[in-house]
Amino acid sequence: MHDSWFHEFDATAALTQFPTGAAFIERFSQISCDELHQMQNRQFMSLIQRGWQIPFYQRLWGNVGIEAGDIQSLDDLPKLPTFDKSHLMESIENHPPYGDFHGFRPGARAVVHTTTGTTGRPQTLLYGVHSREMQNLLLARAYLFQGMRHDDVVHSIYGFGMVNGGHYVREAILHFTKATLLPAGTGRDTPSARQVELMRDFSATVIVGFADYMRKLAETALDAGIKPGQDIPLRMISGHMGRESKSLISSLWGGAEVFDWYGVGDTGTIAAEGPDHDGLYLWEDAHLVEVLDPENGAAVADGEPGNLVDTVLFKQDIYPIIRFNTQDVTRVLPGQSSLGLNLQRIEGFLGRSDNMVKLRGINVFPHAFAGWIAEFDALNGEYLCVVSRDDAGRDEMTLFLETRTPSDSALAEQVSERMRNGLGLAVNVVLREPGALASQTQVEHRQKAIRLIDERFYS
Amino acid sequence: MHDSWFHEFDATAALTQFPTGAAFIERFSQISCDELHQMQNRQFMSLIQRGWQIPFYQRLWGNVGIEAGDIQSLDDLPKLPTFDKSHLMESIENHPPYGDFHGFRPGARAVVHTTTGTTGRPQTLLYGVHSREMQNLLLARAYLFQGMRHDDVVHSIYGFGMVNGGHYVREAILHFTKATLLPAGTGRDTPSARQVELMRDFSATVIVGFADYMRKLAETALDAGIKPGQDIPLRMISGHMGRESKSLISSLWGGAEVFDWYGVGDTGTIAAEGPDHDGLYLWEDAHLVEVLDPENGAAVADGEPGNLVDTVLFKQDIYPIIRFNTQDVTRVLPGQSSLGLNLQRIEGFLGRSDNMVKLRGINVFPHAFAGWIAEFDALNGEYLCVVSRDDAGRDEMTLFLETRTPSDSALAEQVSERMRNGLGLAVNVVLREPGALASQTQVEHRQKAIRLIDERFYS
Repeated sequence: MHDSWFHEFDATAALTQFPTGAAFIERFSQISCDELHQMQNRQFMSLIQRGWQIPFYQRLWGNVGIEAGDIQSLDDLPKLPTFDKSHLMESIENHPPYGDFHGFRPGARAVVHTTTGTTGRPQTLLYGVHSREMQNLLLARAYLFQGMRHDDVVHSIYGFGMVNGGHYVREAILHFTKATLLPAGTGRDTPSARQVELMRDFSATVIVGFADYMRKLAETALDAGIKPGQDIPLRMISGHMGRESKSLISSLWGGAEVFDWYGVGDTGTIAAEGPDHDGLYLWEDAHLVEVLDPENGAAVADGEPGNLVDTVLFKQDIYPIIRFNTQDVTRVLPGQSSLGLNLQRIEGFLGRSDNMVKLRGINVFPHAFAGWIAEFDALNGEYLCVVSRDDAGRDEMTLFLETRTPSDSALAEQVSERMRNGLGLAVNVVLREPGALASQTQVEHRQKAIRLIDERFYS
Repeated sequence: MHDSWFHEFDATAALTQFPTGAAFIERFSQISCDELHQMQNRQFMSLIQRGWQIPFYQRLWGNVGIEAGDIQSLDDLPKLPTFDKSHLMESIENHPPYGDFHGFRPGARAVVHTTTGTTGRPQTLLYGVHSREMQNLLLARAYLFQGMRHDDVVHSIYGFGMVNGGHYVREAILHFTKATLLPAGTGRDTPSARQVELMRDFSATVIVGFADYMRKLAETALDAGIKPGQDIPLRMISGHMGRESKSLISSLWGGAEVFDWYGVGDTGTIAAEGPDHDGLYLWEDAHLVEVLDPENGAAVADGEPGNLVDTVLFKQDIYPIIRFNTQDVTRVLPGQSSLGLNLQRIEGFLGRSDNMVKLRGINVFPHAFAGWIAEFDALNGEYLCVVSRDDAGRDEMTLFLETRTPSDSALAEQVSERMRNGLGLAVNVVLREPGALASQTQVEHRQKAIRLIDERFYS
C-alpha cells in the first residue's frame, strides 16, 4: 500500500548478500572459488535475461549474430561484444535525452545524473533504487575496509549538481557508515578558504575526493596558517589516486594514510585498496572484471596491462552493464593477498587508452607524469602537457610545471632529464609560478583537472 | 544485526502517521479537532521530555524558573520561552562547532549542514535519520498536494554543498515521490545557459527553487531562443514565493501554475499552498504554529500579522525544536478551507521582523516591494533598496530597478508614485539596464538575493 524509496530497497537482503565491514572480511576469508563462481553465475544468467529486454543490447548483440540461447553460463561471457562510452553517446544521439541503453521510463523511481559533457550532449547516468543503493553500499564497503570509523568526520570535496560524484559519496557515507559527513563539494560549492576553516572547526579526520583538489586545499590551508595534521587532525585520505604520488599527498596532509579506489560513474566502486596497500581488491561478488588488449580485445595474461572491462552483476533494475569497456588501463596483480582474502587484486588506474597520446611513435600517458613530478620538492605537483606540431610536422610536448619558489634553469634541466629517462622522449619543460596553470587546468572547478591539451587536433 | 540508514527509519510507520497524496486529503477531510489535538498532545509531551535532556533547553527553561512538572499538556506551551537564531548562534559560539542545542555526538548517524554564514561561524543544522526523512516526507507531501505527478520531470535550482536546500529537495523528491529529478543546483553548480538547455532537452514540467533565480533563468532561456511553455513544457512552479509576484513568474514561464510553501532549514516544510491557491495549509499533525506579537511575545488574533513561532512535533531524535521564533512575519487566515480540510491556513511569508527597516518612523519590509514592481511591464523584477542617512541626519531610501528596455524619466516617476502610495513614503527611484544590479544582489549565486543594503550602519 505504501510507496516510497524505502519500500523499493531491502537493506537487510542487500547487506546479507553483499557484506561490509567485519562481515566482508569474514566472507572473503572463507569463501571458496567454487562458491564465488556459482554466486557470480547465478547473477550473470539473470543479468543476461535483463539485457535481452533492452534495445541497446538487442542491437549490440544481435548485430554480431548472438541469440538468446548462445549464452549458457559465465564461460560464454567473451562471446558478447564489449561497448564503450562512444556507443552510449550514439544511443543518446539517436534517442535523446536518455538513450536506449536502459529500461528507464518517467514514472519509474530512478536517479538521473549527467556527466559534465564539455561539448555536445552530456551522457546520462541512470540508477534504479536497488542498484543505486547497492553502489552506495559498495562504496561504503571500500571506506570501511580502508578503516573509516563511526567517529570519523569526513570532508567530501566531490562536486554536486547534475554530476553524480558528490551525491554518490554522500549517500554511501550517510546510508552505510555512521561517520559524520561534511558535504563541502568543489571550490565552487564552498570556497577553498572556507573549506579548510570547516575542516579545522569540525576536526575533519578523513578527506575524500580527487587528488588534484586535495593538493590545492593543503596549499590553501598552509597559506591561511592552518597546519594539516596539527590544526586539522586528518588521519585518512581516500580517492581515485591512480598515478598520483601518494607519499606527496600524505606529506601535504601531515602524514595521513592514503587509499586508492577505482570505479566509474556507470559502475560504481569496482575495487579498493585495503589496509595492506598491496593493490586494489576487486568486489568479485558484485563485478566481473576482465582486462583486455586495447588492440584486439583478447584477454591479457595476469600482470599485463589492458583495458578494464566491467560487467556489473547486481544492476538488473534499470541500466544493466554487460562488458562495458572503461578504456581505463589496469593490470591484475599476480599472487595471493596478504590479508588472506580470496579476491583478485588490480594495480588501479594506469592511464586512459583513449587519452593516450602517441608522440613520435611512443605511447604517452600524461597521468603517469604525476609520479615523476612528485620526486621534485621544488615543484608543487601542478602540471599541464601541451602537445603541438611544428611547421615541419614534428610533434613536440611541452610540460608546464608550477614551482613552489622562484625557479632556476637548473631545475628545468633536471626535470627535463627525469622525463627523458621516464618516457624515452625529449620534452620541453617550462616552469611557472604557483597558481599560474589554474585557469587552464581548472583544478579548482573540475572534478578531474585538465592535464593534456593536444593542439595537433586544431592545426 | 544489520546497521544502516534503512534500519533506523520505518517508512511504513511514518507514512501511516503522516500521510501524503490522496491519503493526506482523506485524513484531513475526516479528522476532528479533538483527534488532531490528542495526536498533537501525545507527541508534545514526549517532545518536552526529550527537550529536558538537551543542555540548551535546560538552560533556556531553567533560567526562567520552569521545572519539569510545570508542563502538563499542550495548554502549557505558552509558559515556555521562545528562542531565535541568536540563541542558536550563542550556543555555537560557546560550544563550537555544533552548539549544545541538540543531542548529536559523532558516531550517531546524522545529517550535518551549515547555513551560508556570510560573517563569523555558520549555524549548524543537524538531523537524525527519522527527523531527516520526516522532513523529506513532509516536503513531498507539499509537492504532491500541489499536483506533482509520477511522470513529472522536476528541475531543482536549490544549491548544494554545505547548505541544506538542494540535498533536502533531492531527498524529498527521490524518496517520497516518483517524479524524475534534475538536480541542477544554482548557477554555480550548473551555468544558467546549460540549465535552460537541460530543461529543454529533458522536457522539464516542474521547476522548484527560489523565485529570484527562476526569474533569471526565464530571461536566460529567452536570450537563448528557448521559449518557456513551448520549448520547455513547464506546468508547475513551487518554491518560497513570499511577497513575489506569482503572476509575473507564471507569465515568464509560459503560464505555469505557481505554488508557495513555507519552512526554514531547522524545521522543514511547515505549510504549503494547495490547489485552491487560498493560503498555505499548516501541517498541524507535525507542527504547532503560533503567531506572536514581535514586541511582547503574546499571541495575536487570527488575521493579525506576527512572528511565526514553530514547535516541531516529530523531531525528537537529535535536535528538538520547541518554540523557535523564525522572525518571519505571517498571519493566520480566518475562515474555512474551500477544500474541506480541517487544517489552519496562513498567508505565507510577509517579511522579516528582524530585517524590517524603520524609515522615518514607518516599518518597511523590502520584500513587499516585489509585488508593486511587478505591476510595471517595463521592469524585469530585479531591484535593490539602499537606505542611507544624509548629513542632516535624514534617512532616505533609493530603489534601484532594472528595466527591460531603455528607460525614460516618466517611468521612474510612475514607479516613485506607486511606491509612495504603497509605503506612505517618498522613495528615490533609479532605473538601470538589465543585469546591472546582479553583482550587488548576487541573484545568480545566492539562494536568496540581497534586496536591502542599509548604509546607515556603516556611517
